[in-house]
Amino acid sequence: MLLKSKTEQLKSFLKNENLLFREEERYCYAEDSANLRIETVIPDVVVFVETIEDVQNVLKYANIHKIPVVPRGAGTNMVGSCVTNKGGIVLNFAKMNKILEFNPDDMTMRVQPGVILGDIKALAETEKLFYPPDPSNYKVSTIGGSIAQSSGGARSFKYGTTKDYILSLKVVLADGTLVALGSGTIKDAVGYHLNQLIVGSEGTLAVVVEAQLKLIPLPETSVVVTAYFNDIENAAGAVNGIIKERVFPATIDFMDKNSISTVEKFYPSGLNTDKECLLLIEIDGFESSMDTQIQRVEKVLRENGAADIVCISDKEQMEAVWTARRASYGAAAKLAPDIVTDDVIVPRSSLAKMVKGCRDICEKYSLHVCIVGHVGDGNIHPQIALNIENDDEFKNLMSAKSEIYSLAVELGGTISAEHGVGLEKMSYIDKVLDKESIEYMKRIKHLFDPNGILNPNKIW
Amino acid sequence: MLLKSKTEQLKSFLKNENLLFREEERYCYAEDSANLRIETVIPDVVVFVETIEDVQNVLKYANIHKIPVVPRGAGTNMVGSCVTNKGGIVLNFAKMNKILEFNPDDMTMRVQPGVILGDIKALAETEKLFYPPDPSNYKVSTIGGSIAQSSGGARSFKYGTTKDYILSLKVVLADGTLVALGSGTIKDAVGYHLNQLIVGSEGTLAVVVEAQLKLIPLPETSVVVTAYFNDIENAAGAVNGIIKERVFPATIDFMDKNSISTVEKFYPSGLNTDKECLLLIEIDGFESSMDTQIQRVEKVLRENGAADIVCISDKEQMEAVWTARRASYGAAAKLAPDIVTDDVIVPRSSLAKMVKGCRDICEKYSLHVCIVGHVGDGNIHPQIALNIENDDEFKNLMSAKSEIYSLAVELGGTISAEHGVGLEKMSYIDKVLDKESIEYMKRIKHLFDPNGILNPNKIW
Repeated sequence: MLLKSKTEQLKSFLKNENLLFREEERYCYAEDSANLRIETVIPDVVVFVETIEDVQNVLKYANIHKIPVVPRGAGTNMVGSCVTNKGGIVLNFAKMNKILEFNPDDMTMRVQPGVILGDIKALAETEKLFYPPDPSNYKVSTIGGSIAQSSGGARSFKYGTTKDYILSLKVVLADGTLVALGSGTIKDAVGYHLNQLIVGSEGTLAVVVEAQLKLIPLPETSVVVTAYFNDIENAAGAVNGIIKERVFPATIDFMDKNSISTVEKFYPSGLNTDKECLLLIEIDGFESSMDTQIQRVEKVLRENGAADIVCISDKEQMEAVWTARRASYGAAAKLAPDIVTDDVIVPRSSLAKMVKGCRDICEKYSLHVCIVGHVGDGNIHPQIALNIENDDEFKNLMSAKSEIYSLAVELGGTISAEHGVGLEKMSYIDKVLDKESIEYMKRIKHLFDPNGILNPNKIW
Repeated sequence: MLLKSKTEQLKSFLKNENLLFREEERYCYAEDSANLRIETVIPDVVVFVETIEDVQNVLKYANIHKIPVVPRGAGTNMVGSCVTNKGGIVLNFAKMNKILEFNPDDMTMRVQPGVILGDIKALAETEKLFYPPDPSNYKVSTIGGSIAQSSGGARSFKYGTTKDYILSLKVVLADGTLVALGSGTIKDAVGYHLNQLIVGSEGTLAVVVEAQLKLIPLPETSVVVTAYFNDIENAAGAVNGIIKERVFPATIDFMDKNSISTVEKFYPSGLNTDKECLLLIEIDGFESSMDTQIQRVEKVLRENGAADIVCISDKEQMEAVWTARRASYGAAAKLAPDIVTDDVIVPRSSLAKMVKGCRDICEKYSLHVCIVGHVGDGNIHPQIALNIENDDEFKNLMSAKSEIYSLAVELGGTISAEHGVGLEKMSYIDKVLDKESIEYMKRIKHLFDPNGILNPNKIW
């Protein structure tokens, strides 16, 4: 806890209504959507920033007094990236939530960090444009958080992640200096890609206060093909086969048997609980190309032994099948007092090994795991249901996590595809980064934030 | 010129056959494909590296003795990025030209820096995969140079630039340390994006010795639609109209009247010399989607007053029209002893202003300019033919360049879209980067290369 006099000083340059000092107001900011026993504390003060100048003033003050500053959007982060274990100031961007400019001709949008991703997507679509990154929480999560974590989602397979849609940024440095990074044009070959260094840096290098996003033409239509498999290897083979047929699906998502049956138990959706796994393949493009794509995908699915192949083109039914897929988290959460979702990625050719290995590890530690994922990318999300307050279960969980990460790395993958490092994965980072890159990351952190005030203990 | 004893020392750890000491052998390394009066010198020695260890040993030695090191691929750079004005060592990657691994299932390829881009594309296509970046010199330029400059090309509009296709890198730091950056998976949310910092850094931060590339499914087919306009505004309007029709062309390229007539003068290709400009629109995708796309594009072209709309689907004819477009540089080179190609980019909505402004500036300075470009991106390449040895013409060229850059920045663009900074554009960099980002780029340079040996005087 900081000296009260230090935080009280904020009143001298911020509106009273934008400062939360009372404990009951600050309490919920000790948590984000990570569900682990992460050692966090309640921040000393929560600041609702309204302008870039507010952010500059807060940082300048915090830097002088060496007060930790934790930027926060909707708090949907899964790894403890927007919470603090050192107290300090939470910068809440809920009031910097304006779309500043939408330029359909240039296919760009300029936004403040607190804008909800879903609002960006919706506005783009009014002009038949498309902002592809779609983390499953996109209806509530903010673009600021998305930039901090370079978030992906189901459509990353075809469309990439947040980093691929950032043309330029305005950021405030630790000492309060405002810097413009990137030119806002589609290509830019002048100087180092500092904006790409900021994207995914989890608020540890600078605070993003404005972003110019790249949009693309909205695909004309889409369908979802679903198919069940008796074997995960066959499902993985089908994914490769689809690509060999030159079809580039927007999404190839996956639910395993446990996930399917858990969804059916709590949110009956008509899924087939007899099979080993389900693929959900979203194909998009021109209406006139749909038959070709569907025929090829269905052919590959049949060749790989798929059952119950269904092609869904009705928008409501498509939404229903995605709702069932997304219900996996909520359903698994009903199995036990707590639910922990992890996030590992391997080269796609190692997918079956990763899924099976993950199950074996969880079985060894008597943990119930439902596995879903974006298997086009080789990215899986094991959802482990347990009572985290039970010391034995928690110990087992930590052992299992460590082994799952080791397996991912052994298979040529990494310990986080899209959730980030946060407080949760810091102790595992050396499993995947060599000591030289860790050293250079630390030096870059020190260069940008010599007093270590920006979102401390995440990355560096 | 370094003390001979210093360079002679290289013989102690490199094969004699891999060292060029004789002046006649080193002479051509004082030039790349930039055609300006850049003050360069002949490097003291040219080293053909064969292994990562060779690169490490050379850098370790050079770092101790503070000898400049200039990495070089095919020498096709347009801005003096692989030449030296400080002497030193040229690292020639011609012998590190192996494709180390091609994994069609994971859609990845692992390559050494000296591999020719065209070979990467050709190998990918044998498995119906696609490496999109296509600078017009792709048949001779190397992937190492492409990474150094984050090169783009005609297809960047739809497919992005080199930075979008780098999964992981192995780099050697200034002190000879080898570092692995990035995980090689499609998504990676662990730590700072150091590989994205290296891409486009023109060999000033580290030397790339290996890259893992992302490939995508090869589009099934493509056609080129060509159309002439009496007015550049109409051409720009057509580009926007095409996007509004939800067509996402791979390429929207452009030739202005001067460029067309110059090509017809020296390489008759059947182009229409009466019109103000020509658009070349490459559409790709499924065979079954082609009619839809062509109809929409042609409708928009007609609505915007285009003439002579032709759709070319025959591969030889397509190649012929692209050859005519690419001939612009060679043709313009025949107008005068020298040809200088520039590279500026603006938001697409400012394209007509940029083209017209560029012409006005050249007219003011009595310079003959042919303008081509990737107008989907807002990127134009003014090709200025002159006698660069004539002091008056050179002075006019330098005045015109400076004004062209100022105009690009004024219109919200930047001074290089895909060629880079090199020695040529260093003195203009502050037109586009603010002093804080320049300061941070300098600090990053110092962090990676404290002795300033890596490709000195480019970027920083």
